[in-house]
Amino acid sequence: MEISVLKEQFKAYQKKMHAYQHAMGVMQYDFETVMPKGASEGVGETLGILSEESYKLSVSNELRDMVGELLQNKDTLDFQTRREAEELKEGIEKIEKIPMEEFVAFQKLVNKASFVWHGAKPENDYKSFEPLLAEIIEYQKRFAKYTKPELGTYDALLDEFERGMRQDMLDPYFKAVRESLVPLIHEIGKAHAPDTSFLERAYPLEKQRAFSDYLMEVMCINRSNCNIGEVEHPFTTNFNKHDVRITTHYHEDMMHDSMYSVIHEGGHALYELNTGDELIGSVLAGGASMGIHESQSRFYENIIGRSEAFIEFIFPKMKELFPEQLAGVTPHKFFLAVNKSTPSLIRTQADELTYSLHIMVRYELEKRLIGGTLTTKELPEAWNALYKEYLGVTVPSDREGVLQDSHWSSGMFGYFPSYSVGSAYSAQMFAAMQKELDVYALVARGNLAPIIAWLTERIYKYGQLLRPNEIVKNACGADFEPNYYTEYLSKKFRGIYGL
Amino acid sequence: MEISVLKEQFKAYQKKMHAYQHAMGVMQYDFETVMPKGASEGVGETLGILSEESYKLSVSNELRDMVGELLQNKDTLDFQTRREAEELKEGIEKIEKIPMEEFVAFQKLVNKASFVWHGAKPENDYKSFEPLLAEIIEYQKRFAKYTKPELGTYDALLDEFERGMRQDMLDPYFKAVRESLVPLIHEIGKAHAPDTSFLERAYPLEKQRAFSDYLMEVMCINRSNCNIGEVEHPFTTNFNKHDVRITTHYHEDMMHDSMYSVIHEGGHALYELNTGDELIGSVLAGGASMGIHESQSRFYENIIGRSEAFIEFIFPKMKELFPEQLAGVTPHKFFLAVNKSTPSLIRTQADELTYSLHIMVRYELEKRLIGGTLTTKELPEAWNALYKEYLGVTVPSDREGVLQDSHWSSGMFGYFPSYSVGSAYSAQMFAAMQKELDVYALVARGNLAPIIAWLTERIYKYGQLLRPNEIVKNACGADFEPNYYTEYLSKKFRGIYGL
Repeated sequence: MEISVLKEQFKAYQKKMHAYQHAMGVMQYDFETVMPKGASEGVGETLGILSEESYKLSVSNELRDMVGELLQNKDTLDFQTRREAEELKEGIEKIEKIPMEEFVAFQKLVNKASFVWHGAKPENDYKSFEPLLAEIIEYQKRFAKYTKPELGTYDALLDEFERGMRQDMLDPYFKAVRESLVPLIHEIGKAHAPDTSFLERAYPLEKQRAFSDYLMEVMCINRSNCNIGEVEHPFTTNFNKHDVRITTHYHEDMMHDSMYSVIHEGGHALYELNTGDELIGSVLAGGASMGIHESQSRFYENIIGRSEAFIEFIFPKMKELFPEQLAGVTPHKFFLAVNKSTPSLIRTQADELTYSLHIMVRYELEKRLIGGTLTTKELPEAWNALYKEYLGVTVPSDREGVLQDSHWSSGMFGYFPSYSVGSAYSAQMFAAMQKELDVYALVARGNLAPIIAWLTERIYKYGQLLRPNEIVKNACGADFEPNYYTEYLSKKFRGIYGL
Repeated sequence: MEISVLKEQFKAYQKKMHAYQHAMGVMQYDFETVMPKGASEGVGETLGILSEESYKLSVSNELRDMVGELLQNKDTLDFQTRREAEELKEGIEKIEKIPMEEFVAFQKLVNKASFVWHGAKPENDYKSFEPLLAEIIEYQKRFAKYTKPELGTYDALLDEFERGMRQDMLDPYFKAVRESLVPLIHEIGKAHAPDTSFLERAYPLEKQRAFSDYLMEVMCINRSNCNIGEVEHPFTTNFNKHDVRITTHYHEDMMHDSMYSVIHEGGHALYELNTGDELIGSVLAGGASMGIHESQSRFYENIIGRSEAFIEFIFPKMKELFPEQLAGVTPHKFFLAVNKSTPSLIRTQADELTYSLHIMVRYELEKRLIGGTLTTKELPEAWNALYKEYLGVTVPSDREGVLQDSHWSSGMFGYFPSYSVGSAYSAQMFAAMQKELDVYALVARGNLAPIIAWLTERIYKYGQLLRPNEIVKNACGADFEPNYYTEYLSKKFRGIYGL
């Protein structure tokens, strides 16, 4: 077949694959945001049917043949087409390496484990979940050997979520985190805590909604392509670069909660909104990885949003919207309040400084579980010991301990590190950006456009054309290097706490 | 193949067909309600791809074979399976009768005509639309001959939208409407009009939302299966009987607009919510026809919602929500105001009494256009003449005349009558119900449950198991009979206007 005809067919095939993702994405968004609560069964059935169709498309003989023929003509392909073909080929090959009956059995296992975990968490009943977790780990180890026998077991799992991420990168990274942050957190524990009482005053929801709109405007987000839904647990989803949905949850007595949620999700949105036009409908559309995505959300949330420059810029608007609530509050007081750091039990509620220690606990435990030096029976005790060691907190129950996250119950081992690495990427990117832009001077004037343009040029526009490690190199001119992160955090929090 | 296995496969196949409808429905709902406005291109592409897949499912050889084999064993089938098989067989046969290239050409034509109509309406430019309309009519005539050669051309078109509806039923129906209502409307034009000024006061949107919730409660609608979206032009959609979405539009200075929109759409919702459980995922799920559906929405909107008994019952709640706006207003004054009748130009804004005359205009014109006694060039003049004759109004421009509705531009000839027939069905059903229930006594106590139960038992639970004419007979114990409608209207409006 003529290569140009084949390429056309290949594009059309990807668009079809995308259509299923698009429809399922909208259904999931609808489910989270507006669906009447009694309708979940029907949506589950339909998603089941469509994901089966979608799965068939991703492993069909038609696709296999197309990709094979394209890659036989590798040298004549443009970069995007070649990457698309390679990406899809990898996917097909991975599936083929896992025996179908094991794959199906594993799906059933995680469905069951998910269900059991949902019941076990509120009941504080780790025991009922433990045997399923043990089984999941065994499957994960086997699958890792099937799909990436050339890698160590845990490396193979890491690679699933953040291509190219390896234990021999993460070990020194977490070592740096531990050595630098654990003592700092202990020092902060003894320092004077900033006043946060004014954050708990009553901030009317309507005013908070107006404030979200303002924040989106400051972030240069075109609302014609991005709206704000209201949900229990905020997330961002996108169906294509012209249709991004962020979500938030408003609490009357925690205005900063939604504020930083909007900035965080707004960061995810900016990434998606600025991917290349030529990637629409391609399998390479969307952000490069979970870690790179998180680097962007956390860049805006923490490095920009929790900076004094940013707060000074937005403060007049805040005073206008919340004159009574912020009576007597200065930008500096607000800045200190939203940067208050306290070791805590729950990852999702952790502050900027302590967040990575929560991840470090999980990283250590995953390594031991996968490596066979820790059993699932011993897990809660090990969890509690590490929380004591790193964060200095005593875990009162498994509900607030080992049962808090859903990830392991759905078979996601190797996922957690990408959360932390995202923050570390962002610090390194920030350092690179600083060489070319006076970032906080721009932020102080509310001029985020040059910052977004910088990131678009080096990161966003590529979508998944580049791998995560290539993105880091492209943006920073160097491979991943953890010290930027620990230095950034040390400097910031030593300053805030006057240490 | 074992018939029980075949039946299982047939159910599963229908569920798959339903999954596509479900996904496309959610995407369309999302599009109308929350999608950011710049995202329409992407949703169009995805809907295009999914509807192609969905279309393929509805005409596949696999389906044809299944249906053929099932119907060979007709006598051993349960009623539902037989009806499902017949329904799908008809669909396949209809498609086969239209030459593919004509079908595709027609799709292109209506896409173009729709686009041109959207531009022509605001510009008052009938001329640009006219040649496309002429072409559409030619196609419609040809298609009617292909698919239902045993019927007259216009009958074949009517049958598309309301199975069993025929010109020889509609002619006497509209004759009765004309003879009874045209003189009445002229009489009312000379009578004293009720005061409606208080409807135009400022009703805060938040209070209107609370009022909608209250109305839904009075209508016994379980909100776990039905929510209210906000859109420009209200509609109801449903994905299964557990997931129904009504919509409304709030105007601060037209509280009654959203009030009756919610009751109207709530009527559609009640129908869907009370269809039989065994129809979930079946091609026979959902209301029997457009006309039967409209009979329900208009029953609740007009016969119940615009009755004095209903207004008396809800008035305390209205006074509680809108004490200032309704100062000095009695239930009777409110009842008169929301039943004010004035001949007007626009169908969608017509009141209960004049509505069917708008449809009668369109019915007369469709008959002539399809019958070849009127050309599209002569259409605007004929339109304006009939509006003068039936409604006594002078049409100032095609924008408010022949260009007002989208239906013809999308090829829907034969659709309009079902709007009017719906109202007529509802009057006949009401008369039948009155023999068993003291309807307005129940309404006066706010006890709608027995009314809904009556309708569920005779109409709702059947979904599409019965044809529209069978539904009417089942509910009323007789075939469709137009006099109930004209008598109901005459009595009601003579009373209101003291004639």
